[in-house]
Amino acid sequence: MNWPFPPDETPDHVVEHETATWGPLAEAARELVDLCVMSDVDPEEVAAATADVEAAVARLRKVRRTQTLGQEHLPAGRRRPWGNPVIGLRNPIAPPLQVHSVPEGRSESDFHCGPAYEGPPGLVHGGVVALILDQVLGHAVGAKGRPGMTGTLTIVYRQGTPLGDLRVEAWVEREDGIKTWAKAQVIGPDGVTAEAEGVFILPRAIREQLA
Amino acid sequence: MNWPFPPDETPDHVVEHETATWGPLAEAARELVDLCVMSDVDPEEVAAATADVEAAVARLRKVRRTQTLGQEHLPAGRRRPWGNPVIGLRNPIAPPLQVHSVPEGRSESDFHCGPAYEGPPGLVHGGVVALILDQVLGHAVGAKGRPGMTGTLTIVYRQGTPLGDLRVEAWVEREDGIKTWAKAQVIGPDGVTAEAEGVFILPRAIREQLA
Repeated sequence: MNWPFPPDETPDHVVEHETATWGPLAEAARELVDLCVMSDVDPEEVAAATADVEAAVARLRKVRRTQTLGQEHLPAGRRRPWGNPVIGLRNPIAPPLQVHSVPEGRSESDFHCGPAYEGPPGLVHGGVVALILDQVLGHAVGAKGRPGMTGTLTIVYRQGTPLGDLRVEAWVEREDGIKTWAKAQVIGPDGVTAEAEGVFILPRAIREQLA
Repeated sequence: MNWPFPPDETPDHVVEHETATWGPLAEAARELVDLCVMSDVDPEEVAAATADVEAAVARLRKVRRTQTLGQEHLPAGRRRPWGNPVIGLRNPIAPPLQVHSVPEGRSESDFHCGPAYEGPPGLVHGGVVALILDQVLGHAVGAKGRPGMTGTLTIVYRQGTPLGDLRVEAWVEREDGIKTWAKAQVIGPDGVTAEAEGVFILPRAIREQLA
């Protein structure tokens, strides 16, 4: 289930300023997430680190947004996917993926999954594989001008996906009325680990724009 | 793609001590993740919070595990899913879900998805829905004594899944040889939002144990 992310029309200097403000926080938080599962320091050090994180939380909690980042409209009604859990600059859950797309309806990303994404020992959680496939399928259909909500998503797991450096590719297969079919695969050091097919449904608002 | 999580045979006082050590850190980190996308404080406050998080990172980085939590064997060869990105006590990516299972092969969880799990505006990312369904399907097949890697996973999205309090239910449908079929659904305030079917393959090691 994904939305298209058309170009952000916010002036460059504003985007740069916001990136410089929130990017380093999310990057530090990603390191923290990794260390929550990988650190092996003694309990006193963990307690001191917890106090540091609580201090950050107390600062950030002073002003809370009334809408989520996804609900916020930017100039010209555009949206910015900074809260997205796969690609979001501000979201520490996101690795984040940098997805490259072309208008023919192809998207790809080279990305890294560390220990915080582990399911079976040493392998990426199968549901995380599904999460990434869904996101990049959404980019491919969006790039083709056929954005949509995911209707159905089918994943076939060929082999375990090892933690580490990975690649994902997605492409539009065919279109029919309000439906778009797209396929995707995750590729690890030993080849394709998982394949996906998604059926995406054009939202009514976009159908009306296209009509 | 999930592993069974049989009872942890570590002595209670050790588990309690480790829970008391790492649980509060992960809980603070979950609040931090939420605020990375929801805070609206000024840039100076963000910079100060970033410094706090970097201080925590510097402490935790002093000793790094050589194996992931998933690779670590506990007494009697058991494993503890504390690093799991859906249910892991130590993983800030995990909401975390508390999953309740019965040996008939049924699992369920009431859980909460906040703004860090957002895909479309106000809705849970479809891939996060898939991640949670995969995890809980794995619990159901494991509870029935038919643990396995996910072979295929099919999700049908019925309506958007709103951020907030949600429920997931999974159950084993049938078994045939090394395969187990299970179904699951996510339920929001307006009913079922997504349905899943998973086919799980018994790992060779477990086939040999069962034989």
